[in-house]
Amino acid sequence: MNDTGITDKTIAVLGGTGPQGRGLARRFATAGLTVVLGSRAAERAEKIAAELAESTGGAVTGASNADAAAAGDVVLVVVPWEGHAELLRELKPQVDGKVVVDCVNPLGFDKQGAYALPVAEGSATQQAATILTDSTVVGAFHHVSAVLMEDSEVQSVDSDVLVLGDLREATDLVQALVDVVPGMRGVYGGRLRNAHQVEALTANLISMNRRYKAHAGVRITDV
Amino acid sequence: MNDTGITDKTIAVLGGTGPQGRGLARRFATAGLTVVLGSRAAERAEKIAAELAESTGGAVTGASNADAAAAGDVVLVVVPWEGHAELLRELKPQVDGKVVVDCVNPLGFDKQGAYALPVAEGSATQQAATILTDSTVVGAFHHVSAVLMEDSEVQSVDSDVLVLGDLREATDLVQALVDVVPGMRGVYGGRLRNAHQVEALTANLISMNRRYKAHAGVRITDV
Repeated sequence: MNDTGITDKTIAVLGGTGPQGRGLARRFATAGLTVVLGSRAAERAEKIAAELAESTGGAVTGASNADAAAAGDVVLVVVPWEGHAELLRELKPQVDGKVVVDCVNPLGFDKQGAYALPVAEGSATQQAATILTDSTVVGAFHHVSAVLMEDSEVQSVDSDVLVLGDLREATDLVQALVDVVPGMRGVYGGRLRNAHQVEALTANLISMNRRYKAHAGVRITDV
Repeated sequence: MNDTGITDKTIAVLGGTGPQGRGLARRFATAGLTVVLGSRAAERAEKIAAELAESTGGAVTGASNADAAAAGDVVLVVVPWEGHAELLRELKPQVDGKVVVDCVNPLGFDKQGAYALPVAEGSATQQAATILTDSTVVGAFHHVSAVLMEDSEVQSVDSDVLVLGDLREATDLVQALVDVVPGMRGVYGGRLRNAHQVEALTANLISMNRRYKAHAGVRITDV
């Protein structure tokens, strides 16, 4: 399982103080990985990291987004869509040469629920790839329920994670990262040009959550 | 299970002589529904319908697309994307007042595989709704493997079917239609405005099929 060496790497989670970032950090720390939470406010990241370290018994520290990005071997981007492009432009030097995992869903919300926003580059992941020309950008973790990941009573987060990218070495690495979390499975989901619909499908999962009072996730059959 | 009365309805499958149409017709006929296959060439529909009737022991007949549309209580559209708008414009009178289920995935293909085509109306389903102003349009059956549905050895087609629409009565009816097929489950998937990504996700499933030599399908967890 560990021939990718993923467990020796430091995972940075930018925007790590929101529910999705906290949830991912909790799961990686529980699995024994070293995690650095990033936030615009370093103190906030430090506070939440300390809570997660205590709760999981794992290695979680907090820092500014820039310092977290610099510290990470693999860098997850879990920031709100609104500041996505701006943050990536700022942090480009810190992530050059690294695998960057974009986890952002560009969604709008109104009275009828969630809907997919148009993205000039095609998807958040492609926007990241357009900006981070010296990184290898992969899309992943779009559909995993933050509620389930944050719930310390939930032992197994039953969900497949579609991993999108154009470089096999990088998608394999991110699939291995997914696989460290009990219940989660990384499944290759296609090239970057097919990232939009994976990001946008989160709007459908939100519709299902409303209808069924659930925390809907995705499993791929026959794979 | 049958308070929707779905088993008393005649199901028309337009474009029913292709793999997806034949597969759906086989499954509905096996479940005891009355099916009318439509095709541009009535004789071709009649021939394939006769084969399916013999193979399943069910009630399958063939007709022109227009006659099939007229005969159906619920009308499935399983035609190639290229002729989609044109066919619907032609058949509008035959489907007025009916539930029309759009099953079409607007995809392009090149050496790197499948990719989602842009659709001016947002999605094939929304294009259908724009044209068929006196029908109730629902999107469904985008992700079910034709290979599995056509394989008479496969007893259970393990797959959820996301059902999209703006009218609950219609999505409930189509979910009941899905549920007649062993292994399939109809899951409400959101409004028509969120149909694009469900259609487009078929490109990702095709990528998975290539990578994993599989017939990938989708299951929704926690629902």
